[in-house]
Amino acid sequence: MLVMKNIKLLIEYDGTNYNGWQRQANALSIQQVLEEALFKLTGEDTTLIGSGRTDSGVHAKGQVANFFTKSSIPPDRFSYAINALLPPDIRILHSREVPMDFHARYSAVAKRYKYSIFMRPHAPAIGRNYYYHIVDILDADAMNEAARYIIGTHDFKAFQSAGSGVKDTVRTVYEACWKLEPPCCLYFYIKGNGFLYNMVRILVGTFIEIGRHKMEPADMKSILESGERENAGPTAPPHGLCLERVYYRNY
Amino acid sequence: MLVMKNIKLLIEYDGTNYNGWQRQANALSIQQVLEEALFKLTGEDTTLIGSGRTDSGVHAKGQVANFFTKSSIPPDRFSYAINALLPPDIRILHSREVPMDFHARYSAVAKRYKYSIFMRPHAPAIGRNYYYHIVDILDADAMNEAARYIIGTHDFKAFQSAGSGVKDTVRTVYEACWKLEPPCCLYFYIKGNGFLYNMVRILVGTFIEIGRHKMEPADMKSILESGERENAGPTAPPHGLCLERVYYRNY
Repeated sequence: MLVMKNIKLLIEYDGTNYNGWQRQANALSIQQVLEEALFKLTGEDTTLIGSGRTDSGVHAKGQVANFFTKSSIPPDRFSYAINALLPPDIRILHSREVPMDFHARYSAVAKRYKYSIFMRPHAPAIGRNYYYHIVDILDADAMNEAARYIIGTHDFKAFQSAGSGVKDTVRTVYEACWKLEPPCCLYFYIKGNGFLYNMVRILVGTFIEIGRHKMEPADMKSILESGERENAGPTAPPHGLCLERVYYRNY
Repeated sequence: MLVMKNIKLLIEYDGTNYNGWQRQANALSIQQVLEEALFKLTGEDTTLIGSGRTDSGVHAKGQVANFFTKSSIPPDRFSYAINALLPPDIRILHSREVPMDFHARYSAVAKRYKYSIFMRPHAPAIGRNYYYHIVDILDADAMNEAARYIIGTHDFKAFQSAGSGVKDTVRTVYEACWKLEPPCCLYFYIKGNGFLYNMVRILVGTFIEIGRHKMEPADMKSILESGERENAGPTAPPHGLCLERVYYRNY
C-alpha cells in the first residue's frame, strides 16, 4: 500500500515573467508551473501550499511550499526530478519529507525579505530585473534612523494596501536595516512574524521619501501611529523585492 | 558650419539576448542596436568603434566605444538621448567629447574582465544569465596558486581558439585572482594589456579543471609553455564573462 507523505520544498524563482506566486485564471503563476510539473512527475493532481503569496515581479530565494503525495520518489530526489521539468527561472533548491502536520503557511513563524535599490544617473542593464533604479543618492543614515521606529510590535495598518480585508494589522518586526554597498547599491533587510499586503513595499516607499529628505526619520513613528495609508509613502515597485527566507520552529 | 566631434561612450549591456558586440548579417548585435539609435538621434549614418568584440552572451559593465558626429547635442547629453532610444538591456553610462585621435580600440592600453561562477547542487534562478553554474565545490586556493603562473608577459598561444589568425600571441597579464564569496559564488578577475580570442574563457575552463583537482596548479605553467590549445581546459561558457573596464592612458 502506498503511504501518503508530506514533502517540503525550498524554492528560488525569478518573478520577472510570472504573475506572482498564486494560481489564477488567465495569467501564468509560479504555483501553476510547479503544480503542472508535479502532475507530470507523479500523475497526481497536486495542490501546492505556499508560505504566502508574492506579487507579480517579486522574486524569492527562499520560498517554502509543501504538498502531499503517494509517489515512491525518494523525498530528497524531488528537487532534481522537478527541476528537470521546470523552466530555468524556477528552481527547487531542496526537498525533504516533513511530519504530516507541517503546513508551509500556518507553520511559518517568521519571514525575511530583502529590497534592492540601484542609485545612479542611468539604470543598470545587468540585473535590471532585480533592482529598483533611483537617480537620487539616498541618505542611508536617515533611513536607518527611521528603521528603528518599526522594530518591535506595532499596528502596521498605515502600511497596508487598501482593500486587503485583513482585520488584525498588528505585526512584530524583529530586524529592519539598510545597508549601503558603494558605489550604487542600497539594500533593505526586514524580518518579521508576518507582513500585511504590500507592507514591505510601502515601508520601502516611505523610507525612500526619508532618504530624499522629503520626510524626516521621526515621521515613520507618526505615520505608524496615524494608521492612515495616505500618510505613508508610495508603494515601491515589486522587482526590487525578494523573499529571502521563511522560518519554522519545529520543521 | 557644423564641427565634427569625437564622442566617447561608456556602455553597460546584458549580452543574453544579443549575438555579441560586432555587427553582422542575420543576427542582432549590440553594435547594430547602438548604431541604429545613433542614426535615429542624429540622422547621420554612424559607425561605432568598439574597444573590441564580446562574444554572444558575454556581458559588459564598462565597454567603451567612440563615434564621430556633427550633431549639436551637447556631448554629455548623448548618454541620456541615446538611452531613451535603447532597450533596457543596453545602457550608456557616460558620454563625453574626446580628442579626434581617440580610437576606442587602438588607444586602449588594458582591459579588465570578471568571470562569475555559482557552485551549488541546483542552478540559480536569480542571476542565471550572469553565472556559470557548477555542481562541484571548486578548490579556490589551488586556482589562485595556478593564477600566479599567468601573471606577467607570456605567449598565450595555448589559450586561443583555433582559427583566429592572430600571429603575435604574446600578452601581458597584470592581475589575475580568484575570490570566493561564500556560500556559492566564485569570481575571477583578470587585467591585461590585451586578450586573444576566447583567452579568458579558456583560462577559466583550465582553472576549473584545476579547481576540480583534475589538473595540478603547476600544469598551468606547462600548458603555457607548450603553446598547444589541446593541453588547456575547455572553453568556459560565455554568460559568466563580463568586460568590466577598458583602460586608456591619455583620454
